[in-house]
Amino acid sequence: MLNILKITSFTQLLYTNIHKICAKVQIMSKNLTKRSEDYSKWYNELVVKADLAENSGVRGCMVIKPYGYGIWEKMQAALDKMFKETGHENAYFPLFIPKSYLSKEASHVEGFAKECAVVTHYRLKNAEDGSGIIVDPDAKLEEELIVRPTSETIIWDTYKKWIQSYRDLPLLINQWANVVRWEMRTRLFLRTAEFLWQEGHTAHATEKEAIEEAEQMMNVYADFAENHMAVPVIKGTKTESERFAGAIETYCIEALMQDGKALQAGTSHFLGQNFAKAFDVKFATKEGSKEYVWATSWGVSTRLMGALIMTHSDDNGLVIPPKLAPIQVVIVPIYKGLDQLDQISETVNPLVKELRAKGISVKFDNRDTHKPGFKFNEYELRGVPVRLAIGPRDLENGTYELARRDTLQKETVAATDVVAKIEFLMEDIQKNMYQKALDYRTNHITEVNSYDEFKKVLKEKGGFISAHWDGSKETEERVKNETKATIRCIPIDAKEEEGTCMVTGKPSNKRVLFAKAY
Amino acid sequence: MLNILKITSFTQLLYTNIHKICAKVQIMSKNLTKRSEDYSKWYNELVVKADLAENSGVRGCMVIKPYGYGIWEKMQAALDKMFKETGHENAYFPLFIPKSYLSKEASHVEGFAKECAVVTHYRLKNAEDGSGIIVDPDAKLEEELIVRPTSETIIWDTYKKWIQSYRDLPLLINQWANVVRWEMRTRLFLRTAEFLWQEGHTAHATEKEAIEEAEQMMNVYADFAENHMAVPVIKGTKTESERFAGAIETYCIEALMQDGKALQAGTSHFLGQNFAKAFDVKFATKEGSKEYVWATSWGVSTRLMGALIMTHSDDNGLVIPPKLAPIQVVIVPIYKGLDQLDQISETVNPLVKELRAKGISVKFDNRDTHKPGFKFNEYELRGVPVRLAIGPRDLENGTYELARRDTLQKETVAATDVVAKIEFLMEDIQKNMYQKALDYRTNHITEVNSYDEFKKVLKEKGGFISAHWDGSKETEERVKNETKATIRCIPIDAKEEEGTCMVTGKPSNKRVLFAKAY
Repeated sequence: MLNILKITSFTQLLYTNIHKICAKVQIMSKNLTKRSEDYSKWYNELVVKADLAENSGVRGCMVIKPYGYGIWEKMQAALDKMFKETGHENAYFPLFIPKSYLSKEASHVEGFAKECAVVTHYRLKNAEDGSGIIVDPDAKLEEELIVRPTSETIIWDTYKKWIQSYRDLPLLINQWANVVRWEMRTRLFLRTAEFLWQEGHTAHATEKEAIEEAEQMMNVYADFAENHMAVPVIKGTKTESERFAGAIETYCIEALMQDGKALQAGTSHFLGQNFAKAFDVKFATKEGSKEYVWATSWGVSTRLMGALIMTHSDDNGLVIPPKLAPIQVVIVPIYKGLDQLDQISETVNPLVKELRAKGISVKFDNRDTHKPGFKFNEYELRGVPVRLAIGPRDLENGTYELARRDTLQKETVAATDVVAKIEFLMEDIQKNMYQKALDYRTNHITEVNSYDEFKKVLKEKGGFISAHWDGSKETEERVKNETKATIRCIPIDAKEEEGTCMVTGKPSNKRVLFAKAY
Repeated sequence: MLNILKITSFTQLLYTNIHKICAKVQIMSKNLTKRSEDYSKWYNELVVKADLAENSGVRGCMVIKPYGYGIWEKMQAALDKMFKETGHENAYFPLFIPKSYLSKEASHVEGFAKECAVVTHYRLKNAEDGSGIIVDPDAKLEEELIVRPTSETIIWDTYKKWIQSYRDLPLLINQWANVVRWEMRTRLFLRTAEFLWQEGHTAHATEKEAIEEAEQMMNVYADFAENHMAVPVIKGTKTESERFAGAIETYCIEALMQDGKALQAGTSHFLGQNFAKAFDVKFATKEGSKEYVWATSWGVSTRLMGALIMTHSDDNGLVIPPKLAPIQVVIVPIYKGLDQLDQISETVNPLVKELRAKGISVKFDNRDTHKPGFKFNEYELRGVPVRLAIGPRDLENGTYELARRDTLQKETVAATDVVAKIEFLMEDIQKNMYQKALDYRTNHITEVNSYDEFKKVLKEKGGFISAHWDGSKETEERVKNETKATIRCIPIDAKEEEGTCMVTGKPSNKRVLFAKAY
């Protein structure tokens, strides 16, 4: 396209340079590592190149960039609505947890003490030797504060004040917050020292009600994953060794990534009376007796971004389902000179308005500083579900060129049909992405009946492996040590089936799902 | 009402007891301290009794309760929309700031080092003497991390990577986050060690554009305060000594509370090139030269909750403007026996549906565990704008009893008119609350021309005092030390007016606003 530019002024000279720069960037971004070459590298590059997130100057902490945060906002909005529809309210509890609180529930502190950020001082001062600012030794806290890794302890310390009677129950509260776990090996979205999440904390009068709540929230998460993220998940319970520190039962949803590894996408815990006992939270029953309340907690985090990316994206970049796409449709004009751009805008502007009125988010990218090829590449990389292109010939013919991101198919659509077509695609792309991911998963659940077969499938194919297990920690540990695969869950819908443990030959009445996992 | 209950069963006996408890609670909550007795005590009691927030077990950190958080969510939604409409996008930056970052901008570190939470370690462990868990001395961080008191430094460290050319500008980003400032004297919402806020951080190619941005955001804040919170504000600039640490100019909006004290409700800072220089952020201009970028930052916080409460509420409790009320209309049934409640519900349910369809949030409080009087009291305390009551006589007459919270007026409204009436009230209460607050403020801006008059007005009347000032730090400091009043702002719309400083007699060409402040 360079040859069509008449270079008659400094601005146009610059314009040419920009085109050169753009062309360069275009080539650069095509350099995304292929999934088949190095899946892990592909993921890391994609997250940064698609402007989702990047590492910060603080070890293990990420910066979530506007485009990535835009997807997270859509996730938050959908989840928040679902939480409210199931009777929950939002609240906010302190970032800091006194060290003594963390210790009150024995298994909880075991789970979280090893990787936490500890605040010990509350002031800096100028060093007397002029070497800069230092921590003021006179400003030491009497009791150290832990930056919350999860909020059960501070919340149950509060619930003690809020719960007196059965009339105060159930207490159904959610919090959107940041939490910190001092992970040593971090990866953008998947494992970061600080991450964003929501944590629900509920209190109930009966065990049954608390279990129902924990199960309900697992179902809400599964609904969200499948219907908004287009990520099929398997619902199940965790084995004892994989349970949340302090839980009686951990429910989870497990997704399968394109490299055959599983990813835990959300958990919901039935906490029994553990925290009520640790924080002495009792309620007066209708009958007048005093009883400890029953608890749940449940959470999903920015880790969902990792699941979304790794389920759908391809070697060209992100593929985002319409329901979570910050930009659902992008319109790219193809023109020579600003007069032609004006003509195109006259046609495009009413379309933009009409689509927005239907609640579809549209971007008309009329930047004159970038070439269409650059733009095509950029929106492909960013996973915009539908791209429309319109040039002088389309103007003449009353058409658009339409490309869908999920299948990379292109077609010419009459301008009169384009709104209906886009409305159809918002549904169809969502469905198609789910179906594609479901097909992949279906093809990657393998039943095995021997440990040798297990190892072979794990090595050659990956995915979920459905096998009999004797129910012991020792066998679970042995498989983990020997193969790196863990029991992802005991599926909720697992059939009763007589069998023998693939490792020990001991009796088993249910298959569980193993996989290597993120 | 107790005498009408036939006590024939254990449940009913319990019911009676509940009524007794309710009656007690009702009397208790009427015990809200009067504003005229002790304004500060009234505020503290109201925040807790109206279920907005409470102190936590962590020094200076509050728990924002669901009802309070519901108001904050409405504030967030309205502000977020305004930010996006003015071209800003949300992103998320790390909670932690390496100590060295904070030091890079000299006046900034002076402003924030004295009251910050410092993370020094990343692990706890069991004490060898079995005395509990302790900070692991082997897990000391190489460089201490500060819990962000504000994010200029970590953000500008990031912007260095994001900004290369004029094409990357303007960069218009906002973050919703928690921040920590280790305040020694804290009060719920007004001054807490941790608080929630939004912080905008923008980068521009020119000084002019950055100043326009800072002014724009001051205007956005004023618009929000006046049109959503119904809180009139004065727009102005801060004097040098009241400026944000690192700013060239601080714009602010100042509100007046019912006790005659001012409250800074939002600030917007023109930061010049201070942070660009501190973090070496340059951009290539169109002409090819390299220049430092120009910056702004701007924020409002959960402090707005304090402004909202103290502007409107009365001795009966909160008064919330319709635009921010989590519940805009409450309907309380007055009945004897569940049959009557059923009859009332048949009439009320369609009304609830109709109001909700119009986007009005309604609660039908059909709890059988609480008396109408208790409910009336509760919703008055919680500031619900409109209360409808409906009893058997209303059913017969086809009416509702309607009470508006702002004026405490009651009237009987025909059921056929009630929707239209409520729609009208949503506007009218909002307007009336603003007008009432504006009238109060108008009556509490006093022009004075001598320091004696100044002291007299400050003592006897409070409010804003408009006076001439010689522009010197010394005079400002003297007034502050002698009277506790500070210069709240130099109003944007202050007229040119020849005068002499009320303290020193030196020439002045503009009046500034003094007040005691929160």
